[in-house]
Amino acid sequence: MSSLDFIRPAVRAMAGYMPGEQPQGGRIIKLNTNENPYPPSPRVREAIAACASDEVRLYPDPRATALRTAAARRYDLPLDHIIAGNGSDELLAIVMRACLDPGDRVVYPVPTYSLYDTLVEIAGATVVRLPWPDDYALPAGIAAAAGRVTIVCNPNAPSGTCVPIEALVALAEQVRGLLVIDEAYVDFAADHALRLVHRYDNVLVLRTLSKSYSLAGMRIGLGFGQPALLAELGKVKDSYNLSRVSLAAGAAALGDVELMHAHVARVAATRARLTTALQALDYAVPPSQANFVLARRSGVDQRPVYERLKAQGILVRYFATPGLADALRISVGTDAEIDALLAALPEIATP
Amino acid sequence: MSSLDFIRPAVRAMAGYMPGEQPQGGRIIKLNTNENPYPPSPRVREAIAACASDEVRLYPDPRATALRTAAARRYDLPLDHIIAGNGSDELLAIVMRACLDPGDRVVYPVPTYSLYDTLVEIAGATVVRLPWPDDYALPAGIAAAAGRVTIVCNPNAPSGTCVPIEALVALAEQVRGLLVIDEAYVDFAADHALRLVHRYDNVLVLRTLSKSYSLAGMRIGLGFGQPALLAELGKVKDSYNLSRVSLAAGAAALGDVELMHAHVARVAATRARLTTALQALDYAVPPSQANFVLARRSGVDQRPVYERLKAQGILVRYFATPGLADALRISVGTDAEIDALLAALPEIATP
Repeated sequence: MSSLDFIRPAVRAMAGYMPGEQPQGGRIIKLNTNENPYPPSPRVREAIAACASDEVRLYPDPRATALRTAAARRYDLPLDHIIAGNGSDELLAIVMRACLDPGDRVVYPVPTYSLYDTLVEIAGATVVRLPWPDDYALPAGIAAAAGRVTIVCNPNAPSGTCVPIEALVALAEQVRGLLVIDEAYVDFAADHALRLVHRYDNVLVLRTLSKSYSLAGMRIGLGFGQPALLAELGKVKDSYNLSRVSLAAGAAALGDVELMHAHVARVAATRARLTTALQALDYAVPPSQANFVLARRSGVDQRPVYERLKAQGILVRYFATPGLADALRISVGTDAEIDALLAALPEIATP
Repeated sequence: MSSLDFIRPAVRAMAGYMPGEQPQGGRIIKLNTNENPYPPSPRVREAIAACASDEVRLYPDPRATALRTAAARRYDLPLDHIIAGNGSDELLAIVMRACLDPGDRVVYPVPTYSLYDTLVEIAGATVVRLPWPDDYALPAGIAAAAGRVTIVCNPNAPSGTCVPIEALVALAEQVRGLLVIDEAYVDFAADHALRLVHRYDNVLVLRTLSKSYSLAGMRIGLGFGQPALLAELGKVKDSYNLSRVSLAAGAAALGDVELMHAHVARVAATRARLTTALQALDYAVPPSQANFVLARRSGVDQRPVYERLKAQGILVRYFATPGLADALRISVGTDAEIDALLAALPEIATP
């Protein structure tokens, strides 16, 4: 018998990543994990239905050829510049597994996607957290921090802010390690960094179909980089990381970019309205290029607001961490959902 | 610019796991990766079709409650004794990530599932490979080898052989580290080790729905252990590791155990016939309790046989490794598929 002393001390000490609440079923206005309020392409539903066949007894394609081919067409990149992941979360984990020995350094601006911290902890690596300045420009010294891996979430979660692509070009020139540009939300933004992949062999751009393509439930991520880099990442990837259904759904979604753009446009319009309304309620809202906004009342803990909204069936994201407890991250839902939020907020959130 | 020197030296040096060939489409008799030749339950097809809805825009349940509830009912274990993985491959990776710091020792009998080697390499751990004796009993000294993690694949791949559960009980008593019993193929065997989970907090039993439940394409694995162990493993698991469709398909499959048993019985009957026929062709075939057999001609490289079968559209598994090059691993297909193999073999494989 044991006392679990075969578990790594670093893991014993970890709290583990805490995903946002995912109530299954029920009548909830769900504005807490940045899902797209609009449905995926009808082609996705057809692709899933077509997978309801005996072929699921067979392994999926470990090279995800159909999905990567659709991505190559969509993004005008060669097939060998694309890797597929079980969500971009898996691709982030793959980066850590491929690059980090214990004690290696990872650098990123904070606050940002909290999964990075968890993955660094698992790797036994060291993190250099550089606070975003008030204007959300890249922190000075990010290159000088000399990460073996540097991550920029762009647009950043939970702020929604973007740094200009030229700043990422400069950073790619300066860093000696790997630069990961996490573009999970980039379809909601004005510009993207895919063109860097042609020029820099130390840049990996990550995308997900969870947000703009309305496929959070299917776990489909894409990584873009030069073939030599992707070959190394592929060594530490689970061979059969995507199911047959996810591969088919992803390929179908990438074939219907018009619908995605239409939904993104609706989200952007609602985001503008939500931002203005929150500012009128004395929240500071950094300019968001994502499908969420960060609403902050400096120094005022927002847990009561989160809880009262939840009691009314409206779920937003509250982070019980020092730098973020005075803020709420609110996903941009449908107009009706945001109307409901804006109807509830004034009474709940009187300053 | 870089020379990929941000990739870990251990990863640079790796070849990476080589999955079996997965030709997509075409008329191939596919006996190379141990898929079930019979289809999954009609309930699985219904469950997949029901997922062709707008709900895929929402994240899946990170706790896999529906799937784990079905598993709890099926295996008569409490919900908190069950963890779900993106295939049992992911659960194996999770074990390594949770337990192994560089230099830690992993012990297993060989030859066995070659992914273990890849995962140990990724972890920077040290492996103690103990050759199976001729009778495929647990190697003497497996406990004394003092693994932080000890793995027994039972039935073992690629031999198909089983060790008695009493031997695993004795091993669980003796080892101080974690004992992983990889039961990917156990539904095709006479006995299993799930009862050890109640008695030992250092035992993890792994299952997959890829083989007996005909769901290789859906990537569904299950781990069984005591809650304290699973809580540690859960910390290094991707939160949303299974898609909504895989969760639903897995729960549906576990609800139709009768069909699974019927398919297993057909496979066992074909396995017996295949074994006898291979022995008549002067192949040594260890007694298999899995859905494949290992056919060996001691000292005679089987690559030409593999290649000539492939030229005839029959795919079996050839391992280009020293201890296995004189053997072929043949999945138990339908009777018609095995008839085709047995019709082709005599001419191809004259001793």
